[in-house]
Amino acid sequence: MSAIVVGHKNPDTDSIVSAIAVADFMSKRGVTAVPYAQGKVPPETAFVLERFGFAAPALLPSVAGQKLILVDHSDRGQAPEDLDKAELLGIVDHHKLGDITTSSPLFFWAQPVGCTCTVIKGMYDFYGIEIPRNIAGIMLCAILSDTLIFKSPTTTDEDRKAVQTLARIAGVEDYAALGMEMFVVKSAVAGVPGRELLFRDYKDFEMNGKKVGVGQLEVVDLGLLDGVKDDLRKAVQEAKAEGRHTVMLLLTDIMKEGSELLLCSDDAELGKKVFTTADTWLPGVMSRKKDVVPKLEAAFK
Amino acid sequence: MSAIVVGHKNPDTDSIVSAIAVADFMSKRGVTAVPYAQGKVPPETAFVLERFGFAAPALLPSVAGQKLILVDHSDRGQAPEDLDKAELLGIVDHHKLGDITTSSPLFFWAQPVGCTCTVIKGMYDFYGIEIPRNIAGIMLCAILSDTLIFKSPTTTDEDRKAVQTLARIAGVEDYAALGMEMFVVKSAVAGVPGRELLFRDYKDFEMNGKKVGVGQLEVVDLGLLDGVKDDLRKAVQEAKAEGRHTVMLLLTDIMKEGSELLLCSDDAELGKKVFTTADTWLPGVMSRKKDVVPKLEAAFK
Repeated sequence: MSAIVVGHKNPDTDSIVSAIAVADFMSKRGVTAVPYAQGKVPPETAFVLERFGFAAPALLPSVAGQKLILVDHSDRGQAPEDLDKAELLGIVDHHKLGDITTSSPLFFWAQPVGCTCTVIKGMYDFYGIEIPRNIAGIMLCAILSDTLIFKSPTTTDEDRKAVQTLARIAGVEDYAALGMEMFVVKSAVAGVPGRELLFRDYKDFEMNGKKVGVGQLEVVDLGLLDGVKDDLRKAVQEAKAEGRHTVMLLLTDIMKEGSELLLCSDDAELGKKVFTTADTWLPGVMSRKKDVVPKLEAAFK
Repeated sequence: MSAIVVGHKNPDTDSIVSAIAVADFMSKRGVTAVPYAQGKVPPETAFVLERFGFAAPALLPSVAGQKLILVDHSDRGQAPEDLDKAELLGIVDHHKLGDITTSSPLFFWAQPVGCTCTVIKGMYDFYGIEIPRNIAGIMLCAILSDTLIFKSPTTTDEDRKAVQTLARIAGVEDYAALGMEMFVVKSAVAGVPGRELLFRDYKDFEMNGKKVGVGQLEVVDLGLLDGVKDDLRKAVQEAKAEGRHTVMLLLTDIMKEGSELLLCSDDAELGKKVFTTADTWLPGVMSRKKDVVPKLEAAFK
């Protein structure tokens, strides 16, 4: 029995690393599993994989007729197109519960923590399976990435504990420094087309029948985006024109701990409704999942 | 913080016991929680609760504005009517993944095992929380009930291991004898109206836009049902006439290891399509979840 493990579209570090880690975990549980990616890995992820000696997972082939495990999402919009033709063995996630359903029982590991890799750390522990040194290294980076080095409001004690243990296993002495290195790589956006930056970490949601997209770019200093901001605005407008009700891009400054909002919507009042301010600088808004999507969904109800 | 824990409609032993056990588990994790039931407990469950000194959980009030944990289901059809007005903290289940979605991250513990209580056993273990003796007793009974004392094809090694450990904690020496006692109580159907028996362990499914109901009665000897079979047939026909495309009742003989099928459907060929026989005795068919629902869903596709 062999299975495919894959994260969401527009993969981020957590999605890629979770696929690699769960494939390792499953193999040790007696199910041969291979990690794949639904898209090119972003620069931050490439840095992380290279640091710990992994190649980027291959692009996902058709999953029809395959055994499948999904990581870091549980909604159809983020899942492989031919999901219904696969046999879904399980899901590992840390997001809100999505709209995927199955005809047979499956495993589902989810916790309201900052990163899927924190959940996976618990899975290894539950079965008493040792985490390999290099897998611990990339899992550590995924947690630092998803929690913005613990600055995101999604961060929990479980994430902090997992980072401590994983850093020890991976032999990383200063994980905060490794996290900053990672975010400096992520912040290097000069010369990258606005459209590519918008879709790098981007999710489409179905909200009350309307298609709503939310992207996020996390940088160590918003000033780094000055040269590409016009391009980003244009990319947001274009994405909106492609049949979406709303497109939002959060430019998150992880040092200043807040986000600048680029917004294009059929509802001119939407920004004010969601954030109770017409200002485009949103102090404290760090997490799409915690600070934005629930409020956005409430505004669409 | 206090939360409501509740299982599915037409509660069975697993649904009631899981609510009680998860409420205990949550309380030990710092979240005061109270178990409720979506209906009167059936005789088997009453026997189990009395044996280990528990009162039946109160009938579920409105969950609007409440923190909520669902056990033994993840689909709206089985959930409280005002689910959308509650804050869903988590789900513990062992069925196929249903259509419930959330706006915020939650915990989700599910495994493809024979009983939700087997999953709950793992939750206690994961956090190193001791299972109280009387809770272990009712969890043991729930697993014996759901797995038909390990005769159901849904039974896994995890269920068997959980039963061994729980029996030890509960001080039950002969768990198989306790299981048989339980099924003899369940088999006492004389004088109970057919409609009540049909809906005692009954689930409505949405299959390709059609409402399909499947009930199951598990007895130690089908002969015990001779006196009520006409009544059961009438109840199936009536339930069908109330706006359902199909109603199926499985009369399961746990000693002979098979089920007799009572079926009423808009599709006269449905029984044959699903079970590839026109015979009403179905050898080996023991589990609604494993032997019936997936094939039924395939037939409706």
